[in-house]
Amino acid sequence: MEPLQTSSNRKRVLSLYAFAIFAAVGLYFVIRHFGEQLAPGVESAAAGTGQIAAHGSTLAQVLLALAVITFLARLVGGVFNRYLHQPPVIGEIVAGLMLGPSLLKIISPAAFTYLLPPEAAPFLSIIAKIGVVLFMFLVGLELDLKALKKSSHTTLAISHASIVVPFLLGSCLALLLYPLYAEGHVSFTAFSLFLAISMSVTAFPVLARILTDRGIQNTPLGMTALACAAVDDVTAWTLLAFVVGIVGAQVESAAMTLVYVVVYIAVMFFVVRPVMRKLIERVDTKSTAVTRSAISLVFVGLLLSAYVTESIGIHALFGAFLFGAFMPHEGKLAEHIRTGTADVVVVMFLPAFFAFTGMRTEVGLLDSGGAWLAFGAITLVATIGKFGGSALAGRSVGLHWRDASAIGLLMNTRGLMELIVLNLGLDLGVISPTVFAMMVLMALTTTFMASPLLDLLMGRNKPQPMPAAAG
Amino acid sequence: MEPLQTSSNRKRVLSLYAFAIFAAVGLYFVIRHFGEQLAPGVESAAAGTGQIAAHGSTLAQVLLALAVITFLARLVGGVFNRYLHQPPVIGEIVAGLMLGPSLLKIISPAAFTYLLPPEAAPFLSIIAKIGVVLFMFLVGLELDLKALKKSSHTTLAISHASIVVPFLLGSCLALLLYPLYAEGHVSFTAFSLFLAISMSVTAFPVLARILTDRGIQNTPLGMTALACAAVDDVTAWTLLAFVVGIVGAQVESAAMTLVYVVVYIAVMFFVVRPVMRKLIERVDTKSTAVTRSAISLVFVGLLLSAYVTESIGIHALFGAFLFGAFMPHEGKLAEHIRTGTADVVVVMFLPAFFAFTGMRTEVGLLDSGGAWLAFGAITLVATIGKFGGSALAGRSVGLHWRDASAIGLLMNTRGLMELIVLNLGLDLGVISPTVFAMMVLMALTTTFMASPLLDLLMGRNKPQPMPAAAG
Repeated sequence: MEPLQTSSNRKRVLSLYAFAIFAAVGLYFVIRHFGEQLAPGVESAAAGTGQIAAHGSTLAQVLLALAVITFLARLVGGVFNRYLHQPPVIGEIVAGLMLGPSLLKIISPAAFTYLLPPEAAPFLSIIAKIGVVLFMFLVGLELDLKALKKSSHTTLAISHASIVVPFLLGSCLALLLYPLYAEGHVSFTAFSLFLAISMSVTAFPVLARILTDRGIQNTPLGMTALACAAVDDVTAWTLLAFVVGIVGAQVESAAMTLVYVVVYIAVMFFVVRPVMRKLIERVDTKSTAVTRSAISLVFVGLLLSAYVTESIGIHALFGAFLFGAFMPHEGKLAEHIRTGTADVVVVMFLPAFFAFTGMRTEVGLLDSGGAWLAFGAITLVATIGKFGGSALAGRSVGLHWRDASAIGLLMNTRGLMELIVLNLGLDLGVISPTVFAMMVLMALTTTFMASPLLDLLMGRNKPQPMPAAAG
Repeated sequence: MEPLQTSSNRKRVLSLYAFAIFAAVGLYFVIRHFGEQLAPGVESAAAGTGQIAAHGSTLAQVLLALAVITFLARLVGGVFNRYLHQPPVIGEIVAGLMLGPSLLKIISPAAFTYLLPPEAAPFLSIIAKIGVVLFMFLVGLELDLKALKKSSHTTLAISHASIVVPFLLGSCLALLLYPLYAEGHVSFTAFSLFLAISMSVTAFPVLARILTDRGIQNTPLGMTALACAAVDDVTAWTLLAFVVGIVGAQVESAAMTLVYVVVYIAVMFFVVRPVMRKLIERVDTKSTAVTRSAISLVFVGLLLSAYVTESIGIHALFGAFLFGAFMPHEGKLAEHIRTGTADVVVVMFLPAFFAFTGMRTEVGLLDSGGAWLAFGAITLVATIGKFGGSALAGRSVGLHWRDASAIGLLMNTRGLMELIVLNLGLDLGVISPTVFAMMVLMALTTTFMASPLLDLLMGRNKPQPMPAAAG
């Protein structure tokens, strides 16, 4: 359709137009001439202005930092994917480390201060944290509840062994590391529980990605591994919430925290879940597209749930994860959020979290043979516990050695989940920066070894470049 | 498919499982017993811990604030939509005002400090700013380039009249307001240019929403109005960039700013646009889904473009808008970003911006009859300029009075765009908080009046609840 037909001819419009522009500019200068003789009406409020100007440059710093972080994450992720046949997320984590005191600050302190200035750090930190909250919500939303329900005794045996064994071995290792690396105010209980849980984490998203990449996610092996990882996720995060509660409860009453948690879970189960189910049914019966009101409600619920768990002393992450897990997974709304939100979160917010982690990871703290020995011990114990525990459990319930080992290797990937746990430990002051750096390197190593060892065990899969990254 | 079949029987697995759990708990307590006799290895670093603990509560504050903001925006937006037949965005802006010193702080200072504590303000501010940067990118991406190219002389005449007339009337009004409300350090040129531009802004998204709501977006009237608004957008933002450049150039050389801008535009046109076109062609020829690498590149470009314009002295918003406008609008990638990113931005980030604006808007500053008179004058001049200018221009190129008036009413909507301009003026210190409050109220009033007056002029449209909000 054409815009309105008018009776005018071109000339008339053009001359009107030209006249208007010239007249306008002329008129403005006349007005300005008079105006410049006027005095302003209010005294200057210089303080406000200066503060805001500083703020403007903060925006520039944050924009630049986000651009660099997003770009480097994708670049290194792509290199790891294409040339090392690794899930891109490992490269993204490495990119985060490169931007921190472990590499960039050593090579060029000036570039480091320019790209990630100290004034921008608190803002990047909050962006990273909100990003991880959103990500944990997505992890909860993708938690395969059907796999959990269908989980056989095989699955339960493997997954619990894959938590219990590294947990116990981790506690033993704490006996060795506590007198060496724990800080004075940290109790052995807190330190050992954290170390033990760090050993027990499995990165469900990385594991799922490796399976998809090999095209074996629907084989019996793949489905068992996925179910084990799902059970692991729930168990490990429950344990972690428990530990965070214990550590936080040094301040408040532990009993009250427990009461709060029970009330919270009850509200989630008996109020939030039915309401969400109604909402989702309403969205699905409507023939129209998903409304923004529905999306908005989901976000409000997610934010509130995260706020509540943060306030009662277990971390915001659990609230986000649980809201995602409790929210019905089917229907248009969940699908819409999974696809729409995931892009922004995975492409921009998660790399910010990796960079934030990288800024806190100082590999230089491992400055002695003893420290590297400790790192080696951590990695070895983590692998023996996780790989060994799962593989033995798999074998003991009757799997072939090859399948049992493959599951063990898959369960030994820790990826991003481990970084979330470690940042929590550092935030709470339970682990020192040195132990943090050791554990970050351990997470990278154990995740990195999965793909090549699977190649050895099962033969190389056709290298398919993976488009997306999460985990 | 079922998980791996195993040769085990239930009993064996269950007993193994029970044994493992009991043994594990027991073993952990043995380990703990030994560990508690150990001394930690490192002196306490209490400083770091304290800082991080404070940080954790910042996260809780930000989460709560975002939840409240998102919820109230949707609620008031829905009320305005359902009961007042207004685009939801007007209600969202009102929700933002309600959370600020204009309402909540008066009713309950305690609730205000609890929901939006001063410590959380800088973080909300940066989230709001990044949200508006993302939103302006989407506005650029939805800029109807075809409408711009097809724009007839009718369109050009109307849209330029709809800028020139309010611009000049705004400058005249500045003669009145400068001696009353300008702050001491602000030149008349800066003050008058800002006031003039604030009068000239049209909210393309609100206008488009009103048209869609009435189902007349494809009529000749609707298409003319859309084309006019698109031309207006480009003209007004160019003017504004020019003004911001002038205001900022008090510090740096104005000539250098101009050179930078020319170089920037040239790079965007001759480098970025062809590269983006190639990228988009590559994405479209692939049969697979849009890769996250492609999305990532778009984000990096957008962030860098915003960073560059912020650094050379025109605002980050222009870089985001121009990147969206220069990026090819067709193809899977643009579509994917439009749908996926828009949700998060419109549902969560934009309400944060409205709340941020609301926190800066103190209606109580209009504490005298004179101030309300000034607000009345601003609203009257804005409406006469924008509505009168467009309607007269429309009539002069041969439209019927009814159509010309309808276009005038539509062009008089300022909505969110005006808020963006005003926040910029406040940031730069060009307008005082009092003038800011007056102008925010003016923007609300002129946007609010469009729908009922269109009802009067053209008959009430069937009230259809609008699902989504933007503008």
